[in-house]
Amino acid sequence: MRIGFVIYQGMTLLDFAGVYDPVTRLESMDFMPDLVWELCAFTAQVKDNIGLEIVPTKVGEPLDRYDIIIVPGGFGSRKMLEDENFIQWLKTAEPCPLKASVCTGSLLLGKAGFLRGKKATTHPFAFVELSKFCSSVVDARIVDEGDVITARGVSSSIDLGLYLCEKLVGEQSKEAIRRQIDYQ
Amino acid sequence: MRIGFVIYQGMTLLDFAGVYDPVTRLESMDFMPDLVWELCAFTAQVKDNIGLEIVPTKVGEPLDRYDIIIVPGGFGSRKMLEDENFIQWLKTAEPCPLKASVCTGSLLLGKAGFLRGKKATTHPFAFVELSKFCSSVVDARIVDEGDVITARGVSSSIDLGLYLCEKLVGEQSKEAIRRQIDYQ
Repeated sequence: MRIGFVIYQGMTLLDFAGVYDPVTRLESMDFMPDLVWELCAFTAQVKDNIGLEIVPTKVGEPLDRYDIIIVPGGFGSRKMLEDENFIQWLKTAEPCPLKASVCTGSLLLGKAGFLRGKKATTHPFAFVELSKFCSSVVDARIVDEGDVITARGVSSSIDLGLYLCEKLVGEQSKEAIRRQIDYQ
Repeated sequence: MRIGFVIYQGMTLLDFAGVYDPVTRLESMDFMPDLVWELCAFTAQVKDNIGLEIVPTKVGEPLDRYDIIIVPGGFGSRKMLEDENFIQWLKTAEPCPLKASVCTGSLLLGKAGFLRGKKATTHPFAFVELSKFCSSVVDARIVDEGDVITARGVSSSIDLGLYLCEKLVGEQSKEAIRRQIDYQ
């Protein structure tokens, strides 16, 4: 199982960290010892929306090799929506069996065409923007359409992470990881 | 107002990101336009407990210039407890009016002597370890001793962030930021 965490200039760190934490514990807590992941960026330098720099492990490589890609949101997502090269790169994830997003990350999934005919969610302040990319916008913490899962605002990232733990391994792993991260 | 976010090798990213997000929104959402912060490390390279690299903005500089320092936890905290140079560096935060921690970050505050005679909390799995550094261990999400505030496990980081927003600016800012990060 290979996960590609998509990171980009102007993303919100918590959108990423909230799902990265529980999902990677599937490996560190031995529920999924063969889980591997990469931090996938289109450009070598990635800073969050307020300047914090994190270092990608893969730069500009196609995303088709992952079982799951996960795309965070953030103010920078608006700029990426207009960045044709970034969107073309994101489209290389088309063959990935599962695409997930947090917050306005769903706008990017939408722009790449991955939400066509599907229900989806995003930050409540971006519902109108999302509506042009999907069949309907749902006001829910997590919207699971099988091959696409979208989560609502920033902190719903943790919920997405735990949801993926349950989906990938089962209720027991989710509950153990929830306790480990002291999430209520 | 100057905040020093302490980051170190082996920390848990979510311990940091959960408090960093709401607190820095005090600036980006104009509640505290003069808020500045640094990512303070003792060594130039900082990777979280599973290898993700984040880039510090200050390396090895004394911590006495901050109004608040915030220390995350993580498996790496155990190694730092034994790293005399790191602990000496952390002790330079002694004059800071407020010291805060998430999860096992409180063990580091304790080792630096900042919890003497105070109540504190940490991850429930580390209550016994913490007990030698403080007057009593409290099983609460947040323990506020005025000049030292400790938060429980990993995800309590978000609660600490919102708690600090309220403490620094007031209920209204906390509530606006809570909505902005869609925290329930």
